[in-house]
Amino acid sequence: MRREERDLIGVREVPEDVYWGIHTLRALENFPLTGIPLSSHPELVVALAAVKEAAALTHLELGTLPEERARAVVAACREIGAGRLHEQFVVDVFQGGAGTSANMNANEVVANRALEILGHPRGAHEHLHPNDDVNRSQSTNDVYPTAAKLAVYAAAGRLLDAMTVLRDAFGDRGGHFAKTVKLGRTQLQDAVPMTLGREFDAFALTVRDDADLIGLAAASLLEVNLGGTAIGTGLNADAGFARQAVAHLATVASVPVRPARDLVESTQGIGGFVRLSGALRQFAVRLSKICNDLRLLASGPGAGLGEIRLPELQAGSSIMPGKVNPVMPEAVNQVCFDVLGADAAVCAAAQAGQLQLNAFEPLMVHHLLNSANRLAAACRLLAERCVAGIEADEERLRALVERSSGLATALNPVIGYQRSTALARECRESGVPVRELAARDGLLTHDELDELLDPWRLARPS
Amino acid sequence: MRREERDLIGVREVPEDVYWGIHTLRALENFPLTGIPLSSHPELVVALAAVKEAAALTHLELGTLPEERARAVVAACREIGAGRLHEQFVVDVFQGGAGTSANMNANEVVANRALEILGHPRGAHEHLHPNDDVNRSQSTNDVYPTAAKLAVYAAAGRLLDAMTVLRDAFGDRGGHFAKTVKLGRTQLQDAVPMTLGREFDAFALTVRDDADLIGLAAASLLEVNLGGTAIGTGLNADAGFARQAVAHLATVASVPVRPARDLVESTQGIGGFVRLSGALRQFAVRLSKICNDLRLLASGPGAGLGEIRLPELQAGSSIMPGKVNPVMPEAVNQVCFDVLGADAAVCAAAQAGQLQLNAFEPLMVHHLLNSANRLAAACRLLAERCVAGIEADEERLRALVERSSGLATALNPVIGYQRSTALARECRESGVPVRELAARDGLLTHDELDELLDPWRLARPS
Amino acid sequence: MRREERDLIGVREVPEDVYWGIHTLRALENFPLTGIPLSSHPELVVALAAVKEAAALTHLELGTLPEERARAVVAACREIGAGRLHEQFVVDVFQGGAGTSANMNANEVVANRALEILGHPRGAHEHLHPNDDVNRSQSTNDVYPTAAKLAVYAAAGRLLDAMTVLRDAFGDRGGHFAKTVKLGRTQLQDAVPMTLGREFDAFALTVRDDADLIGLAAASLLEVNLGGTAIGTGLNADAGFARQAVAHLATVASVPVRPARDLVESTQGIGGFVRLSGALRQFAVRLSKICNDLRLLASGPGAGLGEIRLPELQAGSSIMPGKVNPVMPEAVNQVCFDVLGADAAVCAAAQAGQLQLNAFEPLMVHHLLNSANRLAAACRLLAERCVAGIEADEERLRALVERSSGLATALNPVIGYQRSTALARECRESGVPVRELAARDGLLTHDELDELLDPWRLARPS
Amino acid sequence: MRREERDLIGVREVPEDVYWGIHTLRALENFPLTGIPLSSHPELVVALAAVKEAAALTHLELGTLPEERARAVVAACREIGAGRLHEQFVVDVFQGGAGTSANMNANEVVANRALEILGHPRGAHEHLHPNDDVNRSQSTNDVYPTAAKLAVYAAAGRLLDAMTVLRDAFGDRGGHFAKTVKLGRTQLQDAVPMTLGREFDAFALTVRDDADLIGLAAASLLEVNLGGTAIGTGLNADAGFARQAVAHLATVASVPVRPARDLVESTQGIGGFVRLSGALRQFAVRLSKICNDLRLLASGPGAGLGEIRLPELQAGSSIMPGKVNPVMPEAVNQVCFDVLGADAAVCAAAQAGQLQLNAFEPLMVHHLLNSANRLAAACRLLAERCVAGIEADEERLRALVERSSGLATALNPVIGYQRSTALARECRESGVPVRELAARDGLLTHDELDELLDPWRLARPS
Repeated sequence: MRREERDLIGVREVPEDVYWGIHTLRALENFPLTGIPLSSHPELVVALAAVKEAAALTHLELGTLPEERARAVVAACREIGAGRLHEQFVVDVFQGGAGTSANMNANEVVANRALEILGHPRGAHEHLHPNDDVNRSQSTNDVYPTAAKLAVYAAAGRLLDAMTVLRDAFGDRGGHFAKTVKLGRTQLQDAVPMTLGREFDAFALTVRDDADLIGLAAASLLEVNLGGTAIGTGLNADAGFARQAVAHLATVASVPVRPARDLVESTQGIGGFVRLSGALRQFAVRLSKICNDLRLLASGPGAGLGEIRLPELQAGSSIMPGKVNPVMPEAVNQVCFDVLGADAAVCAAAQAGQLQLNAFEPLMVHHLLNSANRLAAACRLLAERCVAGIEADEERLRALVERSSGLATALNPVIGYQRSTALARECRESGVPVRELAARDGLLTHDELDELLDPWRLARPS
Repeated sequence: MRREERDLIGVREVPEDVYWGIHTLRALENFPLTGIPLSSHPELVVALAAVKEAAALTHLELGTLPEERARAVVAACREIGAGRLHEQFVVDVFQGGAGTSANMNANEVVANRALEILGHPRGAHEHLHPNDDVNRSQSTNDVYPTAAKLAVYAAAGRLLDAMTVLRDAFGDRGGHFAKTVKLGRTQLQDAVPMTLGREFDAFALTVRDDADLIGLAAASLLEVNLGGTAIGTGLNADAGFARQAVAHLATVASVPVRPARDLVESTQGIGGFVRLSGALRQFAVRLSKICNDLRLLASGPGAGLGEIRLPELQAGSSIMPGKVNPVMPEAVNQVCFDVLGADAAVCAAAQAGQLQLNAFEPLMVHHLLNSANRLAAACRLLAERCVAGIEADEERLRALVERSSGLATALNPVIGYQRSTALARECRESGVPVRELAARDGLLTHDELDELLDPWRLARPS
Repeated sequence: MRREERDLIGVREVPEDVYWGIHTLRALENFPLTGIPLSSHPELVVALAAVKEAAALTHLELGTLPEERARAVVAACREIGAGRLHEQFVVDVFQGGAGTSANMNANEVVANRALEILGHPRGAHEHLHPNDDVNRSQSTNDVYPTAAKLAVYAAAGRLLDAMTVLRDAFGDRGGHFAKTVKLGRTQLQDAVPMTLGREFDAFALTVRDDADLIGLAAASLLEVNLGGTAIGTGLNADAGFARQAVAHLATVASVPVRPARDLVESTQGIGGFVRLSGALRQFAVRLSKICNDLRLLASGPGAGLGEIRLPELQAGSSIMPGKVNPVMPEAVNQVCFDVLGADAAVCAAAQAGQLQLNAFEPLMVHHLLNSANRLAAACRLLAERCVAGIEADEERLRALVERSSGLATALNPVIGYQRSTALARECRESGVPVRELAARDGLLTHDELDELLDPWRLARPS
Repeated sequence: MRREERDLIGVREVPEDVYWGIHTLRALENFPLTGIPLSSHPELVVALAAVKEAAALTHLELGTLPEERARAVVAACREIGAGRLHEQFVVDVFQGGAGTSANMNANEVVANRALEILGHPRGAHEHLHPNDDVNRSQSTNDVYPTAAKLAVYAAAGRLLDAMTVLRDAFGDRGGHFAKTVKLGRTQLQDAVPMTLGREFDAFALTVRDDADLIGLAAASLLEVNLGGTAIGTGLNADAGFARQAVAHLATVASVPVRPARDLVESTQGIGGFVRLSGALRQFAVRLSKICNDLRLLASGPGAGLGEIRLPELQAGSSIMPGKVNPVMPEAVNQVCFDVLGADAAVCAAAQAGQLQLNAFEPLMVHHLLNSANRLAAACRLLAERCVAGIEADEERLRALVERSSGLATALNPVIGYQRSTALARECRESGVPVRELAARDGLLTHDELDELLDPWRLARPS
């Protein structure tokens, strides 16, 4: 069974059992690009419903929509907000039209569900119209960015929770290894002693700082252009709509959205998206470096650095028996590379905006939601399946410190750079510890050497 | 119902009704990162089965696997090649371990299906073992890259077909508009006359050249490292395996794969992937420029260039009645930006390889398959839903030529750069056509001007 | 004439007349990569001298360096800070060793100049040693990042000044065009009326917001790791050095630097650089979009949008007389693309850090200084040579509004989306203004139409 | 002393002693962006002169320029080709106008030098005009891309020479270490034996393959659009000019340039530049990985992999005595990151082309020349100052093989994956070699183990 619908191009039949209509049908035909439907981003579906609900509540207040209609729209939106009808959001995540198809998909689903609530059949738009009623005082160009910001903000919030878990896991290891002395390295060359604890504490701080950065960027998304309609002038919005709709939205979504300072700028502006993308990118760059370090420190077991052991999670090889690989950091590295790629796509799209609009927001939103969600999963998995179970090879760590030529650095202030260099050199070549060489040469007494070369003092000199 | 399986970490229960086993189970638990299963890339599933089949056929020939087992493996692989059991390839597309989980997923599914064929229950690995039999003479490190190359090669082939469709669509419009004179533009400023046909012919040539580049890059993927096992030395491969397995693979997959010149280099090398990514990126850059041009030429209708009309595909706006947007080029632009992002991710992953392996191939393969498939869809949709129906506003095009100050260029060789400049300037400021100004000043006769300023001659001067 | 110097590799002769020594000589031989010497970044040279001066002042205070030596070092540093001896900073901006060569170049120049001040010949290191004295309590790994942050902070400050100039230029045009009604565009298609003033106001706000972002990022660079020495543990720094050196540095450089919260994290961390790079990148993305808009709005003169005129700065063509091109926005676009590239390089380098250090800071610093300085030049030139002189074609702007089918949008709330669509369509096809069509159909009275379609009301509806 | 010149904007004074004129003066004022003059790219200056010479020779042949003038132009161009007057190419490498300023700088310098040759003062353009004579039958839009392609082709050629040096250096080490057995690693975990020679041979092959790719890309630059003038239609070019000018250019530049297949496509097309940028990028990605490997293999000396020793080139630290860092690979890594950034800039510029021209070629050309030249320097320095002097720690390499649990892999085919796994595990945990464990368990005889575990057999199994 099918019902007939009409748009400016002509008449088409829509399957009777779906809540979407002719505009969604056109989009389905026009954009079979990724096979990934809008519903794969539940945050976005929920946010679209929140915007529609806020608009209807405003019309109820302003008296600019018949009460019955407005109430039905609100009821339909709440169902979507509660997770129902998501499968009706079918248009491809990549779509031309700056999100028009996503907005129309929402308008149609909300309208048809509201019609049902009112006791009318789907498609009876004379009783409640997707454009004239559900979309009243709105344009795709304010609805879509507003919903997108809400969705991305929500995803960023979940990422921040996961980052806290990861930060705590690093911090916990930092405390655990606070007394584990090891040799620090610069440029992959042996440097001077430190503790393994400080190494993990540094990871924790990196995660915390990047969480702050992401939090600030996410907060900048709360400035929304709802009420600006097509280009930010608010044409066709009922008087008072903009201000009240944003207030309602804050309540509906439980998020402190605020009206844009300049609706024209906000409509074309993608500053918040680029900013968040940049913050996610920064975290990806630095999380990738951390994963590289974990893999490096765990390299071996025999022919690598072998300083730490990661938990064994699965067989490492289909051919090499007993091989265990650092699969969790490797997987997280890939998520990081993916986020770098997503950021590049976001930037290319951001740059391509023209005049009063950026038509490429759907791509940006898709990638930002993916990146935030994938990083969140990566943080939790890394924390729980890897970091929490990391152990140190204390014996090896201490031995590496004691035989290191880097200890000569500590003699520097006493015997000078030139003579220290000679000692370090001989230690490297002969393998004889710096301590023995210095003693042999009578440069320092045993007591002095005991103090100067005490690994614990060296690792925490101040 | 569940069956027990064991790996180096311990014993786990696997659902009775699945074909995968404990290694896949571990991967499912370790990598819930994107929610996108391996089966979303049917090319890769089919290619993994092709490699397993080629290996079994080789063992059959070499007598290194009992005939019954080998034949069962072949039969199972052919079922997968025909599209069955794909839903059993469940591990996430992002995975640590350089593809080990994908390979083990394949080994387990093939083994269990082969066991069924042999009349044994799934999990009865004493009769046929995922590692010892299905994976015999192989390692993830040769199986996975080999299968990945086959998969990406197949996807690239489909893209090339789609590019031909797009090239022909542009070529067709080129012919259609061969006599449509228009004003060319440089730096968005009016330049000198040309034909609209040549504009579309240029698009066609761009697509053709990039298809050549992609074809060359794809062909470089045909050098495979099957038989190199873990690091390219071929350790544990039965004598003669490498050479014969590649030959069988060529037959099974109907693709002219050839053995790598240097198996060590080929195992760690991701040159072919980076090269193809670069070629796809180049096409994305240039296709994006073409879409920009289409949108620019179709801008308006009243306040834009308004030179061409794109087919109307859907209502352009939820608020502005009658607005029709260039949704198809816009969607294709987004696919292009997406490909740029994917390329950035591929490059980040490529750079991160270490020593004898790049552990990040799963990410590269995922993105290359996506990019090729999305570009293919984009090319076909653009050709069929947009380019094929493009029409020119001939009248406007001719008018723009005739009143253009750019015509003064044609007088350059006769009256000199200096005087032409003065004419062009006056034309710009007064709006009086160059022709009239030149006649007024008695610089040239009407006949001379007729010839010198004939748009058709100017558009095709040689 | 040459003087002999020695390092751990051997003895070499250094030209008598230079202030640098053997370490710089080695670097000159090792890194002839770009031909761009350190002195091309005066900010960095000055910052290195500031760090050396702060260290010497601290030693003076602590009594850890003979007063005479310390005072000579301070005097030498102040000369460099005042712009002298910059030509002695000769090592290539690209260098291995994480900045060691830059630090040693500074140590040697300062030491030799200080020796002169003390009445000794250059190279008489027994009286004042580049490492033991000038570099006392320091390591490249704290000196170089600290100096780099100061340098980049200074460059960012100059960029912020230039951004203010550009913002004001846009704001000035915004005011100038506050009453100039024009047709807004979405997706390059005619949309609804607005003012040209709001278009320029939006540019001004974008610049202001990105200045805020850059300012925040620059401020994060003020957390420095001076005193952390090799890996952040402060090994070999005299007691109390770290705290006091940073305080002195704040005074010497007149910049509120503060000690890092975690010296280990700060030594390996490149968060501030990545953050600033991301902020510059965001501005580049958005400034590029603004330049694109300027070029688009100024396209023509006959066959383009022709809404604004940019000042004529030079002949546009070597062949087309009278052609004037938007060369200033084009040049700025290129600076923006350059900044995008620099950011990609910075990110690649940032990701490549390992364990306690990122060895690739010289590349990051070079690119950040270039980007900040080039953007600063671009902002000023764009403001002064382009934006300040922009004029509008008021007549054309008004005509485009009046004949636009987009006016039908304004009738939407009164006659409904469906009937508005029909009107818009007819207007597009026939060229007859919406107003006339609506009057003809008796849909609205002339008075109603006068009010509803008043461009000024439409452009500023609220 | 100054001379007066005039352009379409007005009259200006030009210093008497320079060869450039008013157009160059305008450019100097408009584009003080990077401070890097055109003359920093001698390849480009020489190529511009070659194009001007080829044009003049063609006019001589066609009789379309007075012989005396043409000969003077040829003579002036040859002087520039021989390296004179380069300091007169003063416009900034970043410039708006698609290269117009570079072309006009060339036209003016050539004209003024030719005037001198003819016995006229500079600026006496009535005797020989920069536009009407030197630029006759040409436009910036064909001159500049043609010259740019020649310049980049020349730079690429020098890079290919340097890559051969690097490839040979790796190949030489490959031969030198052909019998040095070592443990291969996958995912930084111990894998199975190989030779150090094969590791270096793989590097050599990578360099060779990327040289092939770069060579192909460079060759694609030989298709030039000279004769297409403004937009590829050849307007204002004398009859026969295009064909003959390209032929002359091939002779003048000694490079097999050929006419573009489609002049319109070629004028707007930047395919060759993007392709070469992609090829350079691929090499940068892979050379960076090689440098990472060298740094990793040379890590230590005590607490790293310590497999190879790089030549000592300079003191590694200003604080840690005797520390020697892998400065050459580190510097090359930075060049690689720089090339990645340059490629990102090139791609952003490439994408921004519009309609009949890409106005951003100056940026692309600047970055491509930099990248090719920097990579060439990097290849030579790496080969000569690092690779050629690499030595192996043979003793350590052999010891790592013998105690590796990875040897269990070799027992796989004989005792099965399950039992091998148990052995490998015990070896890892106890440190007892696999060989002893297998013998203890009576799994194999000593003779069998001797053969199965012979490192040399394992390293080269086939």
